[in-house]
Amino acid sequence: MKLDFAKFDGLVPAVIQDAATGRVLMVGFMNGDAFRKTVETGFATFYSRTRNRLWTKGESSGHRLAVKEIATDCDFDTVLIRVEAAGPGVCHEGYQSCFFRTLRDGEWSIAEERTFDPEAVYGARP
Amino acid sequence: MKLDFAKFDGLVPAVIQDAATGRVLMVGFMNGDAFRKTVETGFATFYSRTRNRLWTKGESSGHRLAVKEIATDCDFDTVLIRVEAAGPGVCHEGYQSCFFRTLRDGEWSIAEERTFDPEAVYGARP
Repeated sequence: MKLDFAKFDGLVPAVIQDAATGRVLMVGFMNGDAFRKTVETGFATFYSRTRNRLWTKGESSGHRLAVKEIATDCDFDTVLIRVEAAGPGVCHEGYQSCFFRTLRDGEWSIAEERTFDPEAVYGARP
Repeated sequence: MKLDFAKFDGLVPAVIQDAATGRVLMVGFMNGDAFRKTVETGFATFYSRTRNRLWTKGESSGHRLAVKEIATDCDFDTVLIRVEAAGPGVCHEGYQSCFFRTLRDGEWSIAEERTFDPEAVYGARP
């Protein structure tokens, strides 16, 4: 179960993919503790550098990510986690996926609708 | 077309996804020059920290990644690139995807076959 956490200050990128649709939902970072907790609990858990603590996705919104499969790459320095996503979306801005902006004619453009009201789920932002 | 390159020493993770199948093929890193070259040429180009230079995926193997769509996430610090992948696989170990190892009973396990002979494509490794 070894991973190479040395390349990015003790972290590995974790790509979160919807197991049913194949959509890439978000990318977070895990340290060793976050990865172990993800494996042990079956729910995707990340390390927040800004908050300097572990956070299990959905701990405030309820939109948890149930692990279906965990893969790693040839260098053992990235993980790909296929999940069943609870709730209408993973993004704190109210979208199904954090990748809701695509490049069109040199500009980032939003080509999809929100799936939920982020203020209703996360509360008003300061 | 702005991205936030400040979080990881001038780099953003770039998730490469097969546009036809949805399979995540690899994750690389791009600096600003690599991202611009990717957009301008239409072929995924990364920044290698170990070699300290840009590299266009496929420059030695021919297995280039033709860009179909580029998305970014809510924080503008990661990109998701949907591609048409030339050749039988992206991984220098001979697999379709770099994510050929999955976690089974606490061990990384290979559950798929090579799609090409890496020595024939990349030459013998020293």
